[in-house]
Amino acid sequence: LVRRLRPHGESVFATMSGLALQHGAVNLGQGFPDDPAPQAVVEAARAALAAGHNQYPPSRGVPELREAVARHQREHYGLPVDPATGVAVTTGATGALAASVLGLVEPGDEVVTFEPAYDAYAALVDLAEGTLRRVPLRAPDLTVDADALAAACGPRTAVILLNSPHNPTGKVFTPAELELVAEQARRHDAVVVTDEVYEHMTFDGVQHVPMASLPGMWERTITISSAGKTFSVTGWKVGWASGAPELVEVVASTSQWLTFSGGAAYQPAVAEGLGRIGELVDPLTRELGRRRDLLVDGLRAAGLEPLVPQGGYFVVADAAPIGVSDAMAWCLEIPQRLGVAAVPVSAFCESPAGVESLVRFAFCKSEDRIREGTARLRA
Amino acid sequence: LVRRLRPHGESVFATMSGLALQHGAVNLGQGFPDDPAPQAVVEAARAALAAGHNQYPPSRGVPELREAVARHQREHYGLPVDPATGVAVTTGATGALAASVLGLVEPGDEVVTFEPAYDAYAALVDLAEGTLRRVPLRAPDLTVDADALAAACGPRTAVILLNSPHNPTGKVFTPAELELVAEQARRHDAVVVTDEVYEHMTFDGVQHVPMASLPGMWERTITISSAGKTFSVTGWKVGWASGAPELVEVVASTSQWLTFSGGAAYQPAVAEGLGRIGELVDPLTRELGRRRDLLVDGLRAAGLEPLVPQGGYFVVADAAPIGVSDAMAWCLEIPQRLGVAAVPVSAFCESPAGVESLVRFAFCKSEDRIREGTARLRA
Ligand SMILES: CSCCC(=O)C(=O)O
Ligand SMILES: CSCCC(=O)C(=O)O
Repeated sequence: LVRRLRPHGESVFATMSGLALQHGAVNLGQGFPDDPAPQAVVEAARAALAAGHNQYPPSRGVPELREAVARHQREHYGLPVDPATGVAVTTGATGALAASVLGLVEPGDEVVTFEPAYDAYAALVDLAEGTLRRVPLRAPDLTVDADALAAACGPRTAVILLNSPHNPTGKVFTPAELELVAEQARRHDAVVVTDEVYEHMTFDGVQHVPMASLPGMWERTITISSAGKTFSVTGWKVGWASGAPELVEVVASTSQWLTFSGGAAYQPAVAEGLGRIGELVDPLTRELGRRRDLLVDGLRAAGLEPLVPQGGYFVVADAAPIGVSDAMAWCLEIPQRLGVAAVPVSAFCESPAGVESLVRFAFCKSEDRIREGTARLRA
Repeated sequence: LVRRLRPHGESVFATMSGLALQHGAVNLGQGFPDDPAPQAVVEAARAALAAGHNQYPPSRGVPELREAVARHQREHYGLPVDPATGVAVTTGATGALAASVLGLVEPGDEVVTFEPAYDAYAALVDLAEGTLRRVPLRAPDLTVDADALAAACGPRTAVILLNSPHNPTGKVFTPAELELVAEQARRHDAVVVTDEVYEHMTFDGVQHVPMASLPGMWERTITISSAGKTFSVTGWKVGWASGAPELVEVVASTSQWLTFSGGAAYQPAVAEGLGRIGELVDPLTRELGRRRDLLVDGLRAAGLEPLVPQGGYFVVADAAPIGVSDAMAWCLEIPQRLGVAAVPVSAFCESPAGVESLVRFAFCKSEDRIREGTARLRA
């Protein structure tokens, strides 16, 4: 393995799901839904398979999916996405992130992100031979520290990697916080790559605001999303980047060498789903909000101190009150000992300092599993 | 776009398929089959979709597919592939190639390949900041020049990238030629990455021999194949790397950051197909052999001079006799002018010198399209 990837072992999600499987544990670790995907979307994929959609889609994606993404961005956010030049379909959001980072980051360039940060970000920046600068979200309220952000950005900043709604914390960045990021991007002529895969999963009336909708940010933002979370089909790995043509061109150019294309029968099904978001996804989101409450209550009853998330699939909880001082060790142990899998927040951080007792639990799981998992923690 | 990718524009296959679509041309360019995929495989994918196989498969692939790949390699080639540690499922063969090159090639390392070479190889080596050294296959009989090969290999050679059966020429490397490559790999302690996606598409009794089956090569070969060509499902993008655990680990480690996983419902279907190769694929291959003959005859009738391929999807033909001196320009023009799309061999070469009049035509197409396409060339 090349030196630049050696610090990055197996993704923590794979490790914890592996342990869950091995010990028959309730998997509150990896973020994939238990409940079936909307039937209309699954049926559309089955129909596409039968109709012979089994050969290479165009590398940028089938026209109907590009149309559907463009329409979605226009109707939901007022963004002027052009279906012909402003959308690149990728192998999930991960494929779009990989193509963005590898396509934008020259050796020696700097990439700024908030910490905790999804584990792939650091691996991809290392693969591109860039340097990742991490700006901690302020504890305990997870606000953006404007001075720390400004200090992390500079003339070598090529990319700011933003994730809102945020994994693992569930934070939804406010317009004022987005503006702090935008200001740095404009000042240092950086591109913002925003991972917005949880855009439709927000609770309590909190609204997701896309970075690209801020003044002056359309020209410098690559917006990434995917079908996985929106339609509960994480295994389809259909994602996309959208935005200004020159930026999407970077993703498309790079992506053709990494995977070329994919998901022939899934793509028209996702197009169909995107046209029916309100009908298909709003009920999922409402149910997800109830699951969040169930998990938060269950974790409290088990003696942990959860932080109530505004969006996404996950709750971060402090397990110090139940005696956990090394969440990584604890998460490696509990699939066998307690029959529950979870993910340590330290896997999202450069150093465990300050997050030693924080654990991430997923609530995109069935009611039964959430109840059973938290009961096992209580026991 | 980063400097290292700037020399690599749009993949020639995308360009030519785009022109074919735009002008309603018969697409003898990009290598995807016209005929439907075996029904058993499509039905298996439909069943998997309905059964809820819609969430992240494990990053290395679902156990039944890894089992099926291991069994296939054992039964067909006697290779001791371990399903748990010796297989990594990827986003098509392209995903396995990308992960192999990015995971093995340090900046400054050299990669050796035969020319003509599939266009992604050069882009990936540049992305890894390696140097590609191209060894021309000897014209006109496409044999390996042992001295040229030895001269291209040296202490900086990290990887030899081999493709057999070969795209675009259809050459199937002989055991003696493979041994020449193996000798260099052993001498310089290089890894051989072999792209064997056309392993089941050989004609006239010619047998595909996998590099990993040569003496001493198991330990230093990453074998790549995919479902796309074997089962006529190029749009599923289910591929895999197999081999010794330490090498497959490199692919798996790298691949998790590029795509993580994919094709949840396709994977069990491919597993099913791999268990029934004889029944499902042998008839396809026999039919493909007939299509090859049809295309060769049609090209001859149109005045071109085709080279008869031993394997794969493609015929390379010399179009000089019909007045073509710049195959790239001609291929950009004929979708509109003649209603046929094809691919210039120069897209597979560093320089067009020596291949200016060579054109690649695909015969994985319906009988009607092959007849119609060659008739249009004749006209
Ligand atoms: C690609 S595995 C990670 C899935 C996920 O989004 C998470 O668990 O954080
Ligand atoms: C990934 S597009 C290229 C398809 C193919 O194998 C070819 O046409 O050579």
